[in-house]
Amino acid sequence: MKEFDTISAIATPIGEGGVAIIRISGEKALDIASRIFKPKNDFDIKNMKTYTMKYGNVINLENEETIDEVILSYMRAPSSYTGENVVEINCHGGVVSTNSVLNQVIKSGARLAEPGEFTKRAFLNGRIDLSQAEAVMDIITAKTELAMKAAILQSKGALSKEIGELRKYLLNVLALIEYAVDFTEDDEDIIDEDLISQIKDGINKSIVNIRNLLVNADEGKIIREGLNVVIVGKPNVGKSSLLNALLKEKRAIVTDIPGTTRDVIEEYINLDGIPIRITDTAGIRDTEDIVEKIGVEKSKEKIDEADLIILMLDVSREIDEEDQIIIDKIKDKKNIVLLNKVDLDAKISENIINNLDNKINISAKTGEGIDNLKKEIKNLFFNGDVKSESLIISNVRHKQALYKALDNCDIALNKVSVGEYLDLISIYVTAAMKALGEITGDELEEDLLNKIFSEFCVGK
Amino acid sequence: MKEFDTISAIATPIGEGGVAIIRISGEKALDIASRIFKPKNDFDIKNMKTYTMKYGNVINLENEETIDEVILSYMRAPSSYTGENVVEINCHGGVVSTNSVLNQVIKSGARLAEPGEFTKRAFLNGRIDLSQAEAVMDIITAKTELAMKAAILQSKGALSKEIGELRKYLLNVLALIEYAVDFTEDDEDIIDEDLISQIKDGINKSIVNIRNLLVNADEGKIIREGLNVVIVGKPNVGKSSLLNALLKEKRAIVTDIPGTTRDVIEEYINLDGIPIRITDTAGIRDTEDIVEKIGVEKSKEKIDEADLIILMLDVSREIDEEDQIIIDKIKDKKNIVLLNKVDLDAKISENIINNLDNKINISAKTGEGIDNLKKEIKNLFFNGDVKSESLIISNVRHKQALYKALDNCDIALNKVSVGEYLDLISIYVTAAMKALGEITGDELEEDLLNKIFSEFCVGK
Repeated sequence: MKEFDTISAIATPIGEGGVAIIRISGEKALDIASRIFKPKNDFDIKNMKTYTMKYGNVINLENEETIDEVILSYMRAPSSYTGENVVEINCHGGVVSTNSVLNQVIKSGARLAEPGEFTKRAFLNGRIDLSQAEAVMDIITAKTELAMKAAILQSKGALSKEIGELRKYLLNVLALIEYAVDFTEDDEDIIDEDLISQIKDGINKSIVNIRNLLVNADEGKIIREGLNVVIVGKPNVGKSSLLNALLKEKRAIVTDIPGTTRDVIEEYINLDGIPIRITDTAGIRDTEDIVEKIGVEKSKEKIDEADLIILMLDVSREIDEEDQIIIDKIKDKKNIVLLNKVDLDAKISENIINNLDNKINISAKTGEGIDNLKKEIKNLFFNGDVKSESLIISNVRHKQALYKALDNCDIALNKVSVGEYLDLISIYVTAAMKALGEITGDELEEDLLNKIFSEFCVGK
Repeated sequence: MKEFDTISAIATPIGEGGVAIIRISGEKALDIASRIFKPKNDFDIKNMKTYTMKYGNVINLENEETIDEVILSYMRAPSSYTGENVVEINCHGGVVSTNSVLNQVIKSGARLAEPGEFTKRAFLNGRIDLSQAEAVMDIITAKTELAMKAAILQSKGALSKEIGELRKYLLNVLALIEYAVDFTEDDEDIIDEDLISQIKDGINKSIVNIRNLLVNADEGKIIREGLNVVIVGKPNVGKSSLLNALLKEKRAIVTDIPGTTRDVIEEYINLDGIPIRITDTAGIRDTEDIVEKIGVEKSKEKIDEADLIILMLDVSREIDEEDQIIIDKIKDKKNIVLLNKVDLDAKISENIINNLDNKINISAKTGEGIDNLKKEIKNLFFNGDVKSESLIISNVRHKQALYKALDNCDIALNKVSVGEYLDLISIYVTAAMKALGEITGDELEEDLLNKIFSEFCVGK
């Protein structure tokens, strides 16, 4: 265990609940806890066995008054979340009680942990690698069970294992190159063709494996971060009914998104495991009203950011200029056009309809066509079915690193094929290895590491 | 231990956090957990010792897939929160992960716990009495450390002890009465004066003790529920500056209150341990504008509900009709008048000022006079100083029960003094005992009990 100071933070979400946990991690965790914890019997908690609990009170260091009734648990290094000595204090889950206990822990000698610092310690102590650390945050922020499953797989080291294998191949290639270089020094002109072929094979194998990992990366990103879908259409075309029809799904998770404006409503729905952030926009329309103008500006921004636009048209009304503006605006993006109110008489011109690509007849009111909409979304982004069993690259940082490794392997292979100097080739192979090492954190600069952990939540 | 079914719920606040706890309580807690928990080694958790923990995975009952990495802890009956066997599963603190684990626990045979059901079991199993159970909720919802301290004292049974003593006195009185009644049956006319005097003493002692408990009950209610303060005054008189000056306090706790309307801003501040809910109202003024009218109506309601009105007047301006309406409206309530902008030239009429009771000169801008305002609030509601050391009756239900007991004791004492039949007196003494028993839950009907626990939060 490396020597770090002892840190503490509230590990449970903030709010009113039955129980909250204050976590303390570091060499002095038990020592610090012992100053403010009075067990029911006179047991000295410094003698606590690992993975045991004690019932007692947290007291005020200054006047020995009881602050809260708690259960204290102890996990000795290295078998703990951080790999260090960890004490967890389970106290009553109110805002005041939780903060009061944390205050005493701080007064007793712990430092307030930074966001992600517990997980960072687990990484720095070698208990998990960086991709596993990132998976922890993915588990916490997962919006669907599918996202959760992918994160769990990654947290257990599935990606780390693949990256490890890849790095082994490339290390082997480097060894072969070194051997070949030594050999040519002895006898300048003859390079063993068999050796070259082995180097090629090694690089090739790496390329195939990296490509395999990348094949579902776009889908992985969607599963992790959600699909950004914007619903557009004129007021009263049935956007809210559609939203409600989609939200009615049994497994839908609805969360409030901070920063939601009055003009743009955002909701998360769970479409067979795909988290979909649906944005309902104010109608797009030239307007003189300033407030409405702001709403319309926001709608345009949302459309630009969207992964998918769903345009709703009311088939019981004629298309007007306004509809046409919207149709023109979205045609360069992935889009689905919903022809709503199919239960009413159609008045929309057939000519217009024939020019639209992905058309689906729906009745937001009766729910007709909603299943087709879902199918179409899956077709557009997942080629029909959403895979969940295999390892998926879901993190953009990992994807970029894999592409960097792939590019370097491609160049290396190319250079081997045209008979370039092996010394030059080893530079690209090394660069590919380094890129892979960024995923597991074996090769990553400290400020980048700090940046990644600073995006974690406090208490993790 | 009584035989109940096994229940489960998320015990930590809902949200994204490092850790969440799923609590399982009941005879089959360990059995249910063992079906979905796979420890890292092949240890059978049914052999777990009490107050120990195990690291492992929660798996899906149907397909054995890993759902989350967890730490499981076990507290055997009766040494647990509920007095039953309790298993707590510490899992990753996201919404999906927490619910996924809970789902498996439910599928594995536990029933979803109702709000307050864990605490209700602790009560029904005789581990705590009703006043202690209520204190648990007070700890969780405490807005200040003082409120927390009072709740901790009560949760440790300080009130229960007092009530127990009181009931003992009254039981003794009943015994004396029975003895006296038996005695008079033998020899009709002679009642031992000494016996009567003992009965009187017993009732008297109870009355004194009940009064002692009640002496700080109003203050206790304020400490528990907060003081409802409404700030009134015309727009631009400095209400927001006052609010900011008060909120700037180092120890202030600011929470969002659900249901806050646009017209009425509510904030909690911590005034030396007193939680103060400050409502800033729209100005009171006859208006034709409908939206503003709603705001003004709300202000009037708020004034009616307030414990204290703070009226702000701008001394640099003349009093107008509107100010006078407000002054007339609040004069029947506890109020403090703040004369703001004392740093500017006074233009307000001296005559008006002389007619106001609690005047304080302040400058909301510079903070001058804020301390006097605080002192005045404490004077009005706490006779100057806020006591924290002694037991405080903070719960309205307890207060009402104590008054019921007091009334019955008063009647009993009165009837003893005028020589009424002792049989009749015993009815009142018994009623007093029963009222006291309602506080600890010894004598309370089941539907009332259920009502009290249903107001708890889920997971407690």
